Amino acid sequence: MTRYKLKISYDGTRFHGFQRQTDLRTVQGVIEQSLEKMTKGQHVDIFGSGRTDAGVHALGQIIHFDYPGEIPAENMLRAMNSLMPLDILILESEIVDEEFHARFGVKKKTYQYRVDCGHYTDPFKRFYTGHYPYPFELEKIETAIKDLIGTHDFTSFAASGGVIEDKVRTIYEATVRFDEKSSELVFEFTGNGFLYNMVRILVATLLEIGNGRRDVHDLLRLYEVKDREQARGCAPASGLYLKEVFY
Amino acid sequence: MTRYKLKISYDGTRFHGFQRQTDLRTVQGVIEQSLEKMTKGQHVDIFGSGRTDAGVHALGQIIHFDYPGEIPAENMLRAMNSLMPLDILILESEIVDEEFHARFGVKKKTYQYRVDCGHYTDPFKRFYTGHYPYPFELEKIETAIKDLIGTHDFTSFAASGGVIEDKVRTIYEATVRFDEKSSELVFEFTGNGFLYNMVRILVATLLEIGNGRRDVHDLLRLYEVKDREQARGCAPASGLYLKEVFY
Repeated sequence: MTRYKLKISYDGTRFHGFQRQTDLRTVQGVIEQSLEKMTKGQHVDIFGSGRTDAGVHALGQIIHFDYPGEIPAENMLRAMNSLMPLDILILESEIVDEEFHARFGVKKKTYQYRVDCGHYTDPFKRFYTGHYPYPFELEKIETAIKDLIGTHDFTSFAASGGVIEDKVRTIYEATVRFDEKSSELVFEFTGNGFLYNMVRILVATLLEIGNGRRDVHDLLRLYEVKDREQARGCAPASGLYLKEVFY
Repeated sequence: MTRYKLKISYDGTRFHGFQRQTDLRTVQGVIEQSLEKMTKGQHVDIFGSGRTDAGVHALGQIIHFDYPGEIPAENMLRAMNSLMPLDILILESEIVDEEFHARFGVKKKTYQYRVDCGHYTDPFKRFYTGHYPYPFELEKIETAIKDLIGTHDFTSFAASGGVIEDKVRTIYEATVRFDEKSSELVFEFTGNGFLYNMVRILVATLLEIGNGRRDVHDLLRLYEVKDREQARGCAPASGLYLKEVFY
């Protein structure tokens, strides 16, 4: 048994999310099936740093698994890439000791969210961005996003369906920039954990602040009221990227 | 009857090409069906500047049609965009006189071809680029591409299946640049016409020249031999974009 840690990228468009589901194409399911070709049918469980929903992408998801046998990390990367469909790419491969756990060892994560601000949805971006065709003031979003830094109760920003009781999380970094060339707003959030749909709800709220439909410091109020109904919006999965996981 | 000239963009991935086909999703078919919603079921024929194959994209395809009635060009654009699926976008709309014909009036066209040069296929580019993971010298391609300028017999670069007898075409501009940020080679070709698969065959040949597998002036030899077998390769549809049509 050898434990491998892999950094992977995937286009989430044609997956029903990360987590294995019977009869549905998922990232975990596809990778586990591929590994069975290397183990003569022996099943190998994959552990991810966390789930991603249907349509959500990854630029740097981390997984680990225990392989029956030992091959050099570089060979594992090549062998697996030769078996992967074109919408999953293994970026890095490393042999780690059995203390390493892709999920339990996570210290922080960075998510990116991309918003296409063109009037119409760009045909080439429909699966790769959210879309906000309304006016906004970037300065308002820049001001509001600073209210994210620190430790807050994110109950207002957690979709129902999550099973986690403790809704307090710490955000270390939160930035937004407007890319003129692509007409995209690019958000990045680094924190010690994120609740179900939290990034997508935050982006929807920040866009409403930029549009002037909410007070520029409405996040502070939402931390207090602890009411998902008051944040309302949820930006689409297509704009969300799991960018980096830190251990 | 009013004749409309439209500039449109589409992601060719989920279309069986431009031209209408029974029971297959095509760009022409989808637009014609959408127009029937505006004409209470009356069929309106769409004319494109030319066909694009399955998987080939358009940044600036031109179409025309005769609409039974007259509405301002800007309203036509908005009405049609509200009916289009997300993989087609109407960019510009103009009322033209009946002399204008999208196909017969073409003076020249520009095609773009994008090649991802990364070692593995990037999951996010698999439908939007060709892929060339081998070494190449950009200078060789830059030298070779100059041999395209002018009027030549492109018999060696025409896929069988074309019905056109005259294989002589004039290329006005042909450029290549390497985009460091995206690791992409971007080719652009402007000419008075292009034979079936001609751009894709030219790109495959130019990449072989860059790789040193062909003489840097092999295009000159290929014009002479007039033999499709000698050019061999054909870059995939996914990297090809109809960029602009001139009248």
